[in-house]
Amino acid sequence: MKKLIIILFLIAAVTVTTFAQRKIVNLPDLPGYVTLKCDFHLHTVFSDGNVWPTVRVGEAWRDGLDAIAITDHIEYTPKKDFIPVDHNAAWKISEITARDFNIILVHGTEITRKMPPGHMNALFIQDASLLAVDSVMDVYAEAIKQGAFLLWNHPGWKSQEPDGIPKIYNIHKTLVEKGWLHGIEFFNHTEYYPLVMTFCRQYNLAVIANSDMHGVISEEYSDPIYTNRPMTLVFAKERTHDALKEAMFAGRTLAYFRDMIAGGEEYAKPFFYQCISVGKPYLENEKSVYFEVTNRADVPFYLVNGIPEAPQSITLAANGITRVVVSKKVTSPLTYDVKNVLTGENEVLKIELKY
Amino acid sequence: MKKLIIILFLIAAVTVTTFAQRKIVNLPDLPGYVTLKCDFHLHTVFSDGNVWPTVRVGEAWRDGLDAIAITDHIEYTPKKDFIPVDHNAAWKISEITARDFNIILVHGTEITRKMPPGHMNALFIQDASLLAVDSVMDVYAEAIKQGAFLLWNHPGWKSQEPDGIPKIYNIHKTLVEKGWLHGIEFFNHTEYYPLVMTFCRQYNLAVIANSDMHGVISEEYSDPIYTNRPMTLVFAKERTHDALKEAMFAGRTLAYFRDMIAGGEEYAKPFFYQCISVGKPYLENEKSVYFEVTNRADVPFYLVNGIPEAPQSITLAANGITRVVVSKKVTSPLTYDVKNVLTGENEVLKIELKY
Amino acid sequence: MKKLIIILFLIAAVTVTTFAQRKIVNLPDLPGYVTLKCDFHLHTVFSDGNVWPTVRVGEAWRDGLDAIAITDHIEYTPKKDFIPVDHNAAWKISEITARDFNIILVHGTEITRKMPPGHMNALFIQDASLLAVDSVMDVYAEAIKQGAFLLWNHPGWKSQEPDGIPKIYNIHKTLVEKGWLHGIEFFNHTEYYPLVMTFCRQYNLAVIANSDMHGVISEEYSDPIYTNRPMTLVFAKERTHDALKEAMFAGRTLAYFRDMIAGGEEYAKPFFYQCISVGKPYLENEKSVYFEVTNRADVPFYLVNGIPEAPQSITLAANGITRVVVSKKVTSPLTYDVKNVLTGENEVLKIELKY
Amino acid sequence: MKKLIIILFLIAAVTVTTFAQRKIVNLPDLPGYVTLKCDFHLHTVFSDGNVWPTVRVGEAWRDGLDAIAITDHIEYTPKKDFIPVDHNAAWKISEITARDFNIILVHGTEITRKMPPGHMNALFIQDASLLAVDSVMDVYAEAIKQGAFLLWNHPGWKSQEPDGIPKIYNIHKTLVEKGWLHGIEFFNHTEYYPLVMTFCRQYNLAVIANSDMHGVISEEYSDPIYTNRPMTLVFAKERTHDALKEAMFAGRTLAYFRDMIAGGEEYAKPFFYQCISVGKPYLENEKSVYFEVTNRADVPFYLVNGIPEAPQSITLAANGITRVVVSKKVTSPLTYDVKNVLTGENEVLKIELKY
Repeated sequence: MKKLIIILFLIAAVTVTTFAQRKIVNLPDLPGYVTLKCDFHLHTVFSDGNVWPTVRVGEAWRDGLDAIAITDHIEYTPKKDFIPVDHNAAWKISEITARDFNIILVHGTEITRKMPPGHMNALFIQDASLLAVDSVMDVYAEAIKQGAFLLWNHPGWKSQEPDGIPKIYNIHKTLVEKGWLHGIEFFNHTEYYPLVMTFCRQYNLAVIANSDMHGVISEEYSDPIYTNRPMTLVFAKERTHDALKEAMFAGRTLAYFRDMIAGGEEYAKPFFYQCISVGKPYLENEKSVYFEVTNRADVPFYLVNGIPEAPQSITLAANGITRVVVSKKVTSPLTYDVKNVLTGENEVLKIELKY
Repeated sequence: MKKLIIILFLIAAVTVTTFAQRKIVNLPDLPGYVTLKCDFHLHTVFSDGNVWPTVRVGEAWRDGLDAIAITDHIEYTPKKDFIPVDHNAAWKISEITARDFNIILVHGTEITRKMPPGHMNALFIQDASLLAVDSVMDVYAEAIKQGAFLLWNHPGWKSQEPDGIPKIYNIHKTLVEKGWLHGIEFFNHTEYYPLVMTFCRQYNLAVIANSDMHGVISEEYSDPIYTNRPMTLVFAKERTHDALKEAMFAGRTLAYFRDMIAGGEEYAKPFFYQCISVGKPYLENEKSVYFEVTNRADVPFYLVNGIPEAPQSITLAANGITRVVVSKKVTSPLTYDVKNVLTGENEVLKIELKY
Repeated sequence: MKKLIIILFLIAAVTVTTFAQRKIVNLPDLPGYVTLKCDFHLHTVFSDGNVWPTVRVGEAWRDGLDAIAITDHIEYTPKKDFIPVDHNAAWKISEITARDFNIILVHGTEITRKMPPGHMNALFIQDASLLAVDSVMDVYAEAIKQGAFLLWNHPGWKSQEPDGIPKIYNIHKTLVEKGWLHGIEFFNHTEYYPLVMTFCRQYNLAVIANSDMHGVISEEYSDPIYTNRPMTLVFAKERTHDALKEAMFAGRTLAYFRDMIAGGEEYAKPFFYQCISVGKPYLENEKSVYFEVTNRADVPFYLVNGIPEAPQSITLAANGITRVVVSKKVTSPLTYDVKNVLTGENEVLKIELKY
Repeated sequence: MKKLIIILFLIAAVTVTTFAQRKIVNLPDLPGYVTLKCDFHLHTVFSDGNVWPTVRVGEAWRDGLDAIAITDHIEYTPKKDFIPVDHNAAWKISEITARDFNIILVHGTEITRKMPPGHMNALFIQDASLLAVDSVMDVYAEAIKQGAFLLWNHPGWKSQEPDGIPKIYNIHKTLVEKGWLHGIEFFNHTEYYPLVMTFCRQYNLAVIANSDMHGVISEEYSDPIYTNRPMTLVFAKERTHDALKEAMFAGRTLAYFRDMIAGGEEYAKPFFYQCISVGKPYLENEKSVYFEVTNRADVPFYLVNGIPEAPQSITLAANGITRVVVSKKVTSPLTYDVKNVLTGENEVLKIELKY
């Protein structure tokens, strides 16, 4: 019998390893939509990245993602002395692995120009090699011809905008007018650009979060403060490549990274309410009412600006249960601003807790 | 704008601390029942423990438990030179804290005798001080008079059974005949006793898991192999003290610790199926069918003894998604033994995966 | 042979547990002195703490401390309905355990008064019960009569100083004039008070860091940002109770917590140089010289304000090796301010890197 | 002043990231020798690995290694449709990075043949392309001509030896007779082969430990049970490429992985004594003597088979301090077998603790 003890307990030690399994990302679906977790900006050895394309699929699978795009630079191929330039190679290599691991692989590339216009990802393309042309407007035209979703990357990247502030140049206006620009990165790698919220609202563009990974995802986000890599949450009608594409062009996205969510209130509000559930009061005495709020998501919520006599701030920890004690002088619902859910450059989500 | 960046990201660093919040224990309810996570064996400074009673409530709240019993020894009070003996003190001190934190506090004590009969917890009592009498049968009679659930603790504890093997003595038989024995610890602290499965089945007793903690829970189970402390899962009609008591006497329990579940098949089987969900095949080629199994529980499942041509073993990692590739030569469902779900001393749960 | 593999590898899993062993705190001795790591402010169930006194010794042993003082409140004993007041009980109970575990146990207590004068620890006393008298000056007189080191605790604690700023009141001046005040806490629990640096310099007092722990050390400092609990580093002639006492009265201390060191330059400077070693250049090309700096201490050093053409800032990670690339335009040594080593309220340590 | 608090504490959160610094591997030098930590078996995209060669240098730097060899397969280049075969490419690409990061880069390759003879690494070569010839003996001859150290890799690899037991075939005997075989892997990736100890002793070969990494080191060894990747400890006269080579050919190595050390007693014994220090007794009573043993190495030591009346087994935890209580009936020194330091296939190191 002792042997059984040893055998069963032994297994546990071996299964601690986290890299052989797919993680469950705790971010809820919205009513009527499935939430696809996506990273649309990844590099490999076919431009200036340091890993083979299939590595990106394996990382995505373990990280619990639904979709990725490998977006090697068209114009920057520093390894070309050893690896002949082939703008579709990463796509060809990773396609089969993606299918085997049930990852939606979006065919993409990064059009890599000085600012303006800066770097743009073309997603949902057919043939990246046709984008290797000189004139930037010709490149965009070809991408659009292939049905591309054009995404403006890291618009406040200090190497291109030394003050860190994204700016709309004429070429961006032209793209918007032509209907050729579809999204902007709010989060890139570990940075973010508040002004993107204003641009996206003004021009009706999708708010995007990507890792822009050149190295190894698990190393770059190894700090425990990073529960997940940056992810674009896309609210799709179903979990397919085409439904993802439809949702992207329709702008049904939220940008998520660290302890922040950014995007339109129409998605941020139902997202918040899908994450949390407010329990019935479990105790009432002369002075107070006690209840619990359960947050089943990987993102915490920092509630601030409570009404008088109510708690002024409440942190709803990620994957945790928060105990709330409220004076009987106030009545349900409580109203709060959610400090870390940005619905605009200077706006945060307003919510109610009904108990 | 930069200021906003700093402020929002700063918060994350502060909220990393895990001890200010209540954890969600991922163990599902059963159809018709709510699963109460319980630890019925805890000590404090009022016997030979090292913490104040309210600490036990705080630990339980953070650990996501629903119910605990503080069970200080009646007969062993080594701190009495400094703390006058009061067998109800821990109960009185922690009762209010438990109510404030929505923890069901079961009034209990440990009747601490040589083997036989060994140590027994009396749970759901009214007054522990009345149990401080010499004759062990008189103690049990008084406990039963108070409505106690009698639980035989660590029956194979080497200090009392040097060979580590639990034995049924005459006094245990007498207790069973009188209907005075209601449960036995299968797991105690970090040990377990396979024979308990046979005793519980033979005498129709509840299978129990407790920590028997004297020190600090978070320190004793700090190793990452311990996702949770030992817990008795009680399948109650609702989350109340009385419903808990009813379920305990009805024997609706499973014992859970580390990567093991032990108890009757009637609870183990639906528990398993509530933990996992099998996805529809996402890929089929000439040779194989591909599908995913999602396990949303904190306990992994080790499937073994697969049918010919199917994977011989599959590990369904805790809170993870497992990819299964099956030859087209076999047809759904696959059958497996679940190596770490014990339904008897030498029996494990048998299950099917339908895809 | 396979059996050997299993046996040897099995052991590792079991020894992962960190609470059964004594940790090595990596903080160097100073030339001529041994560095004693101390926490002089701890509570137990004998005042408003939640653990038994021996727990404090066990924690200290595991945390790699050399000395502790248990300092239960004289005037605040909220558990007295259950635990009769005995101001020397914690000392009596923990003395033997301390000897068994080679921890220097300093007999202490906390004199707990409103501000002014606030809370004061009396360390190195003989009988705490004699300090239970009304007049605060009488208490201090008795403590001094017993040979006490008087330590002013958390002088900017918001419950007593709502603006968080410590203030010198007349009673403090009187104490200083009489030579009755010997140290002030710069760090308390997770707070610190920059002004303490000015007070300590002005009045020639020891700079102190303590945990003021009421709960469980490992839980309070569980966040990975806390490598160690707050510690007073005392530079003693040898590792004995009496040498510790001599060093304390001589003011040979540094306060350490998180990523900060605070105290007089005469200790901070040699401490820094004992922590780090600068390697010889391993590479030189036309433009640059390359060398490594090894920091063998648990505390990082943030070097800032580098000279022109040298790196403006260098982080010497704790227990790590930092690679430095310097232009050939500059010559050794480089000079830096060490941002996180405070030698005064508004002063930081200035150091040189010779390569 | 508050601002200072925020600024200083903020920094800590940012520096938690572990991948931007070089780790200190705690493994001591031997008297007269510097201990070089080495991994001589690594793959890149130039054969069947998944990372760019410079990644291997970065990993080695962060992992605290002194030397590595990149050893892509000569005969197996599955990425050749995308990356033209160039057996020296990984060497050329990583050479400059290695110099910049002070890593000794050994020029190597893997001669990849069926068993017998199986896979062999040629280390310290000049031109890998000259090893791309058919006859295996011709390859070895060319390697030897270039001054190679020939290392037999994973001799018990189940893909080549289904029973997992390494075997000496005629070709291995021939190599030994010619003086062309210089070392054998005892540890490879996460496996090890006890019989290698016998082979190495019989034929006077170096005992080697390598990772054989194809993916990402930090992911493969992410489990906390792996303090470090597998390492060959080479006892060199100085930290240079040539001194490393001299030490390798002289067979001055130990193989290290997880909680095990394997190699000749002449190196294992001084290594053990350099790791630990035994303190003077700090307490003596009628029955017992108390002292501490400090182990400053990353490897624990499991002492077993103690003499009568002494502790039968003692675990000297890695980077920890162990308290030993010995009966006065025994006298110093205590003798032990070190269960996890293998000096032969069935032999472990015997040591003394003098207190």
